[in-house]
Amino acid sequence: MRKICIVVGSRANYSSIKSVMLAVRERKDLQLQLVVTASALLERYGSPVQLMEKDGFTPAATVHTLIEGETPLTMAKSTGLGLLEISQVFHGLAPDVVVTVGDRFETLATAIASAYMNIPLAHTMGGEVTGTIDESIRHAVTKLAHIHFPANDAAAQRIIRMGEDPSAVFTVGCPRMDIVSAIAAKHANPEGQEMLALEGVGGKLDFSKPYLVVMQHPVTTEYERSAEHMRQTLEAIEELHMPTAFFWPNADAGSEDIAREIRKFRERNDDSYIHFYKNLPLESFIPLLLRCACMVGNSSAGIREGAFLGVPVVNIGTRQAGRDRGANVIDTDYDRRAIVDAVRKQMAHGPYQRNAAYGDGKAGKRIADILATAPLRVQKRLAY
Amino acid sequence: MRKICIVVGSRANYSSIKSVMLAVRERKDLQLQLVVTASALLERYGSPVQLMEKDGFTPAATVHTLIEGETPLTMAKSTGLGLLEISQVFHGLAPDVVVTVGDRFETLATAIASAYMNIPLAHTMGGEVTGTIDESIRHAVTKLAHIHFPANDAAAQRIIRMGEDPSAVFTVGCPRMDIVSAIAAKHANPEGQEMLALEGVGGKLDFSKPYLVVMQHPVTTEYERSAEHMRQTLEAIEELHMPTAFFWPNADAGSEDIAREIRKFRERNDDSYIHFYKNLPLESFIPLLLRCACMVGNSSAGIREGAFLGVPVVNIGTRQAGRDRGANVIDTDYDRRAIVDAVRKQMAHGPYQRNAAYGDGKAGKRIADILATAPLRVQKRLAY
Amino acid sequence: MRKICIVVGSRANYSSIKSVMLAVRERKDLQLQLVVTASALLERYGSPVQLMEKDGFTPAATVHTLIEGETPLTMAKSTGLGLLEISQVFHGLAPDVVVTVGDRFETLATAIASAYMNIPLAHTMGGEVTGTIDESIRHAVTKLAHIHFPANDAAAQRIIRMGEDPSAVFTVGCPRMDIVSAIAAKHANPEGQEMLALEGVGGKLDFSKPYLVVMQHPVTTEYERSAEHMRQTLEAIEELHMPTAFFWPNADAGSEDIAREIRKFRERNDDSYIHFYKNLPLESFIPLLLRCACMVGNSSAGIREGAFLGVPVVNIGTRQAGRDRGANVIDTDYDRRAIVDAVRKQMAHGPYQRNAAYGDGKAGKRIADILATAPLRVQKRLAY
Amino acid sequence: MRKICIVVGSRANYSSIKSVMLAVRERKDLQLQLVVTASALLERYGSPVQLMEKDGFTPAATVHTLIEGETPLTMAKSTGLGLLEISQVFHGLAPDVVVTVGDRFETLATAIASAYMNIPLAHTMGGEVTGTIDESIRHAVTKLAHIHFPANDAAAQRIIRMGEDPSAVFTVGCPRMDIVSAIAAKHANPEGQEMLALEGVGGKLDFSKPYLVVMQHPVTTEYERSAEHMRQTLEAIEELHMPTAFFWPNADAGSEDIAREIRKFRERNDDSYIHFYKNLPLESFIPLLLRCACMVGNSSAGIREGAFLGVPVVNIGTRQAGRDRGANVIDTDYDRRAIVDAVRKQMAHGPYQRNAAYGDGKAGKRIADILATAPLRVQKRLAY
Repeated sequence: MRKICIVVGSRANYSSIKSVMLAVRERKDLQLQLVVTASALLERYGSPVQLMEKDGFTPAATVHTLIEGETPLTMAKSTGLGLLEISQVFHGLAPDVVVTVGDRFETLATAIASAYMNIPLAHTMGGEVTGTIDESIRHAVTKLAHIHFPANDAAAQRIIRMGEDPSAVFTVGCPRMDIVSAIAAKHANPEGQEMLALEGVGGKLDFSKPYLVVMQHPVTTEYERSAEHMRQTLEAIEELHMPTAFFWPNADAGSEDIAREIRKFRERNDDSYIHFYKNLPLESFIPLLLRCACMVGNSSAGIREGAFLGVPVVNIGTRQAGRDRGANVIDTDYDRRAIVDAVRKQMAHGPYQRNAAYGDGKAGKRIADILATAPLRVQKRLAY
Repeated sequence: MRKICIVVGSRANYSSIKSVMLAVRERKDLQLQLVVTASALLERYGSPVQLMEKDGFTPAATVHTLIEGETPLTMAKSTGLGLLEISQVFHGLAPDVVVTVGDRFETLATAIASAYMNIPLAHTMGGEVTGTIDESIRHAVTKLAHIHFPANDAAAQRIIRMGEDPSAVFTVGCPRMDIVSAIAAKHANPEGQEMLALEGVGGKLDFSKPYLVVMQHPVTTEYERSAEHMRQTLEAIEELHMPTAFFWPNADAGSEDIAREIRKFRERNDDSYIHFYKNLPLESFIPLLLRCACMVGNSSAGIREGAFLGVPVVNIGTRQAGRDRGANVIDTDYDRRAIVDAVRKQMAHGPYQRNAAYGDGKAGKRIADILATAPLRVQKRLAY
Repeated sequence: MRKICIVVGSRANYSSIKSVMLAVRERKDLQLQLVVTASALLERYGSPVQLMEKDGFTPAATVHTLIEGETPLTMAKSTGLGLLEISQVFHGLAPDVVVTVGDRFETLATAIASAYMNIPLAHTMGGEVTGTIDESIRHAVTKLAHIHFPANDAAAQRIIRMGEDPSAVFTVGCPRMDIVSAIAAKHANPEGQEMLALEGVGGKLDFSKPYLVVMQHPVTTEYERSAEHMRQTLEAIEELHMPTAFFWPNADAGSEDIAREIRKFRERNDDSYIHFYKNLPLESFIPLLLRCACMVGNSSAGIREGAFLGVPVVNIGTRQAGRDRGANVIDTDYDRRAIVDAVRKQMAHGPYQRNAAYGDGKAGKRIADILATAPLRVQKRLAY
Repeated sequence: MRKICIVVGSRANYSSIKSVMLAVRERKDLQLQLVVTASALLERYGSPVQLMEKDGFTPAATVHTLIEGETPLTMAKSTGLGLLEISQVFHGLAPDVVVTVGDRFETLATAIASAYMNIPLAHTMGGEVTGTIDESIRHAVTKLAHIHFPANDAAAQRIIRMGEDPSAVFTVGCPRMDIVSAIAAKHANPEGQEMLALEGVGGKLDFSKPYLVVMQHPVTTEYERSAEHMRQTLEAIEELHMPTAFFWPNADAGSEDIAREIRKFRERNDDSYIHFYKNLPLESFIPLLLRCACMVGNSSAGIREGAFLGVPVVNIGTRQAGRDRGANVIDTDYDRRAIVDAVRKQMAHGPYQRNAAYGDGKAGKRIADILATAPLRVQKRLAY
């Protein structure tokens, strides 16, 4: 029986790997070892670890690795601390395969620990092209991984071009869409959406009117300008003045600046039409997204889930640059005027056609099957 | 004036980057910041930091990062600790460019620190193909680096195929050959070689007779078999019974096992024909290599310096698998019989033609020129 | 010239050592090396490092050491990380004496780094008796320190009874009172207090009416009950319903729970009579304290500055248990009823006589003089 | 059932706590959790962890925490790393009581982790007076511990004078003597001692003649003079020129210098009368000590086991200064002449009377009984 160790470092990580966890748990020939770390342990990100426990997953280990400060320095140091700690955890758990998700710093720490400890490493969501430091991290993880689970063929092709062994690259779809698909199916009719106002704080949202979803994270390579970037978006929201579901930023260099900008905005302006969320379980977020008039910001949710659900999206700035996207996205600069215009255009257009580019909702099972049966090798070699 | 921070983590690192350090120091528009770490600080590796100081380089910072144990776990943890500490050092030094060398774990720690801290990263010796975990590390560092200094065109082509921007890839030669070339020139005549017996311990070597140079390091992906591998080599040496310059292994998972095997051998056998070295400055090593009858083991010195100097080499096992090599190398398995036969064949052949595949001895100056003038970018993006 | 390295880890630390820093800077035979770490670097504690810079102190090093989570585990880990990092900093700065303040975890990390590195360690505020983990930390630091600067004779006697060499124990007063004294003198007349409303958020305070100052921190040995403790205090405030200056808690295990309790309270109750402060420079805090009708909570400010200024204080729970106190303090349990009654009693009494038990406002200069002249020894030995 | 977590960081630690481990394992109401760390994991200290496993103890966790370098800096950093890692281990094991042994840096790391994590801490061998940094560490640990197990009444009195609650101080004897006593009983007759020559390396010892046991460790507060100190001892041995069992030093700042001095001595002198040991299980060491003509150096074994066994001892320098000692010890300075004279005096005297000052061989059971029944408190307070 193979021991499959899955490392989850954030709430987003969890949604992106949950269907794999479920599928691994199903198989008799696999044993799931869940390691929870980084912001997935922190209350100020909604204690995602509790969510996992509610879903019946018991962590084999929990490791605090985030060093306070949210500067580039503390991101680097947190990666170092994560590596120190996670390798110790692997020493205790002795997994047969480690699974690492995406492109965050705990992803890299996990990958290095596995590589040095001669544990075969599987990586989901590799081969995609985006902006920020995530881009470098993701490809570095690809060079350390032994089994690749890209979301689509374009990503798979990039992984192979980077010199990975094609027999170790499996196009499976994005496991996150498995969850999105199930939730969206459950929420075919609109009732229950009022419940969303019970979460978060701030003004009460009238979901019967067209509303915005806003989600804007710091860009690590531009983190000194995070506050200015957020200001443009906030001013656009102020001008649009329609019901708005607003999300606090991720833990990354610059997020403290963004948060302060938001607080300033709230103190100076009427914000009664805005409802603020720290974190929303995907179970609540997907229905929210499903019916919004337009999603605004720089979250990958607009590109990925947005494509899957056909949601109109205004994507701001460089954070998603290069990412494969569908017809549902309009890109703009960090500019209040441009943002307002794009949102109005999207509202005029209305919902888009659904698009399966990030998967068909069956990635989790596919991945578990491959984890159970793929040959496990440790030595890698550039394929050219 | 650009501040160029060069991180040196071992004696081998130092020889591989010294000519760059010299060339950076020469330029008025560059300021050298030397960071010394890992085994480069340790007495049991000959305190390479003292060598640097003797050469007139004053470290801007020294950081101990090696966790004792020499298992895969401690290698991973040492990388984590290195990342924690080196990022703190970068915070203090605020360099404009960081230079990282090769493929050791401090190389990776340095690369990640730079990447997260938005400091442009230059990498030497990328794009090569070898065995062991070094292979994965090297390519992961390539994916984090902004400026690439491969040793030859084959390596440069591989870097570009991995998706790096061709305008950031500069074939410059291996800077280590700059030093090798200078030393070899100085030692055109054989006198002074007797001096070598003053370093190291054990039997006195008669350099007037044909002698072997043996250097065998643990292979991290096979580290449990390090002792057995070393035993085969030691038995071959016992059979050949000719003057032998023998080097202790690198600090890596498995090196303690190798060391114990050597100690056992010394207690059980006549070892009066073997002279043992812990570390030898390149200034002594190159003359030693230059005139040896055959070099035996799995060191890259056989492939790289050996090609440059035309030295007959018997390369054992997988550690150098895939590395571009010249006609001077015969590969064998971990097998006493095969090793003995190959050595005898090489001795019958004698010295080979010199080969400039790893550079023409002018890499250091080229690199310094590029560091002074290349555009510095932080955001990377896959070129396809 | 002796190099005096002072490590500051929080805003409170800074006020407690600033007069020493000023006095060290004054002396020609001393050189100040300022190291800023822990919460003193964090924006969510008001970026105390910027305050230092405004006061003309340039950090020789800044080190992020707080691991997010605010549980006992992360406090222990943060101490470990602090020790790792601060010892590295001492290696670079090579101070002749290190000064550590009080009893927080960075205090202990600093003390251990000095002790192992054979650097004479001076400690302020030792020998006091309080509750919580601080009690153990403070005395452990005493056992590592070489020069002791207790605030009063009772503390000095305890240090000596613990086996410290009496010739190394100097009763100097609390350096914090130097600052308090100067500020209080400047604010003899009430004008300018209105300015306080410009800092913090929430309801506008009418300083012409009797007002409360509330400051309640988590107790690390009871941290699971932090929320309940805070609830009792909040309910007492609700009942008293008078102008209230309310402070957010320190970064310690339990502070997140307290913060949530406060947020809940604000969402459910009219809080228009409460003004919320995250951090207040001592320059603003002392005038606020000086004229308040009563200080409520478990901060040492009530016991220490309160005694010095003659402020009526209601001290709740165990956090200050054992600390020497003046007539100005009434102690109560974590109980809404008891708190309300005690506050009413204090308001009936009004201001108390000033008391110099924690110093006469000249500690800083005394300490600097001793640092310049005391013999520096490293080897300690129990005096009995 | 109480979970008793015992942290073992060196071979010496193990002998000092083994009888407690045995007694804890015996009791039905206690569960033993063994954590092995620091040099107890390292092959170059004889892999003490394997010894524990052979004795039937399975580690609940193993943690590498030693940073290479053996300077004061790396000792401080290793303590920090130990604290980071050991607190994580406690988080997983959730012990009811932690037991920490003596005064090494892992002892302190263990103590701080327990203190911050609100886990009652028991400490053995507190209250003793010695030289070096151990002195400060030991008393700092006392200030963090909740239950004290001193070896004798003098030590117990010192602990109480330091302000510890007398009801938490239990004079139990040194658990190491439990083991010593059992071994000594087994070796009443001299046969089997020849076996000792099978361990270690170097000259064959003739145990039928009077022989010396030499054990000299670096003194951390004088670590720059470690080499000179060892030279004096080596010259004394050279002059005495009698059969000598010689032990390599502990891992501490300065041990590398001592080791080099020994190597130099071996290269320059006839060392055929010296047998070198890296580590000797107590099972072999006690018989060796029992019959030696004189023990020389600065190990506590001379003072403690020596008193217990009545062995003549020449104790050199400051390392054991202040430690309670019996009539069997002559103290000398770091001086070849004085050492030679003292050894000759001891040889003239011959064996001493046995002395039970460090216990009667029943400490382990006493400690286990108390661990099972003592009230467990977390909050400490100075008793005066």
